[in-house]
Amino acid sequence: MKFKIAGFQMNVSQNKQKNIEKVESCIKGLKTKEIDMVVLPEMFICPYQTTLFKDYSEVEGGETWRKLSKIAKKYHIYLIAGSVPENENGKIYNTSYVFNREGEMIAKHRKIHLFDIDIKGGQYFKESDSLSSGESVTVFETEFGKIGLCICYDLRFPELSRLMVDRGAKMIIVPAAFNMTTGPSHWDILFRTRALDNQVFTLGVAPARDNFAGYISWANSILVSPWGDIVNKLDENEDTLISEIDFDYVTKIREELPLLAHRRSDIYKITSKEK
Amino acid sequence: MKFKIAGFQMNVSQNKQKNIEKVESCIKGLKTKEIDMVVLPEMFICPYQTTLFKDYSEVEGGETWRKLSKIAKKYHIYLIAGSVPENENGKIYNTSYVFNREGEMIAKHRKIHLFDIDIKGGQYFKESDSLSSGESVTVFETEFGKIGLCICYDLRFPELSRLMVDRGAKMIIVPAAFNMTTGPSHWDILFRTRALDNQVFTLGVAPARDNFAGYISWANSILVSPWGDIVNKLDENEDTLISEIDFDYVTKIREELPLLAHRRSDIYKITSKEK
Repeated sequence: MKFKIAGFQMNVSQNKQKNIEKVESCIKGLKTKEIDMVVLPEMFICPYQTTLFKDYSEVEGGETWRKLSKIAKKYHIYLIAGSVPENENGKIYNTSYVFNREGEMIAKHRKIHLFDIDIKGGQYFKESDSLSSGESVTVFETEFGKIGLCICYDLRFPELSRLMVDRGAKMIIVPAAFNMTTGPSHWDILFRTRALDNQVFTLGVAPARDNFAGYISWANSILVSPWGDIVNKLDENEDTLISEIDFDYVTKIREELPLLAHRRSDIYKITSKEK
Repeated sequence: MKFKIAGFQMNVSQNKQKNIEKVESCIKGLKTKEIDMVVLPEMFICPYQTTLFKDYSEVEGGETWRKLSKIAKKYHIYLIAGSVPENENGKIYNTSYVFNREGEMIAKHRKIHLFDIDIKGGQYFKESDSLSSGESVTVFETEFGKIGLCICYDLRFPELSRLMVDRGAKMIIVPAAFNMTTGPSHWDILFRTRALDNQVFTLGVAPARDNFAGYISWANSILVSPWGDIVNKLDENEDTLISEIDFDYVTKIREELPLLAHRRSDIYKITSKEK
């Protein structure tokens, strides 16, 4: 089952409305390319500053949500809407909404793992100061097959990818924003590894790099095959990654090297205890 | 806690006795370098051919085992003796024996995951035709700290590394022999990933490449840091990888980026069910 996917590595401004207009203008421009699915970056409506998340936050079903739903419907695409700060009763989540071609929300992932770093005399960055964490593994159904969804730091935990794959995911999509330390060291390898270990496609979509931002995104949006090869990759600039995905290739790889079947579930097992 | 480790990427011949002599001669040559620990490759006493494993197999405590124990004691080193075919009541295992400086066996790992590949009209290689599989996770104690041990294909399964780390491993040692297809595609990335995800050192020691062998080893013995960097790496020729390991660096990395502490054990958990 083949389909065309586009990851929009966009320059995110401080203006929420302009960011959404930019998303629509990008998708409009893709019209001639028969794109089935568009993926946006982590926190694409606001700067990546934990102190600002509350100001930019909205409830599910709020204005931004409705606009995104409308865009999905208008252009008849699946829209994996990066992530936005979601406000539920004053608690803020880093949330990715997924809309189908009719503009209906078919999934929503709240970032499970919050990125906290506190090095003595060094970097201090604590998402948990301003964010609450999700509690669920997210896999959604499309006409092409099942797709897993997680956000940035979530990708560092192999257990989560395994659970998505056990629920049928043939691809893992990751709105993300690695920084200038973790990006060059770990970005490629994490996407390659999760793809290779689980024999799925992985796609990471990041904001474009802005060297004047408070938090500088590594960018380098990336698509990896179930064999662990980098299929497509952007540099640091605003651009759109466009690729055709073939889920039959997942099946082929899993037949040729049956890693998932070779797991020793009689010796170890990953269990989930979601609320 | 610092110590010096040597991985011997040896040319393996068909002569068991000569292979063992070569091991001793290598270790003797290292004497001036104050090596604490020597690691040998997977199946270092025989060619990597499943049909031959039975002929070369011995029981635990057999002649090869006794020679290895003696070498460890004589040179006062920890010897992670790659792997050999172990015969127990006619069943053959791919087994790694570990000896301490006194020549006592302090651990033994039987390969848990057997490498079976059967592509229609393509490659056929089934370890399970001639080997039985291990049933246990292996971590052993040294004066420097705890070390996990697995063999080759075992490394492909992230659950196993996690279990070793949960039992205190600060390093994962892997006698291995990837082939000329999986080696260039996956060797580096697997060692880098398991190191990075688990914040441990990983060391892979392979037989040197022999282009005339039935099974051609990718070689490229490799040492990776807990940050995921390649610290040391050989090419395809017979050679010894020598490095100093500092387990304090494991502690430092785990403090700076507390990945292991950030796991959401309230949502997922890897459980073991060993016999």
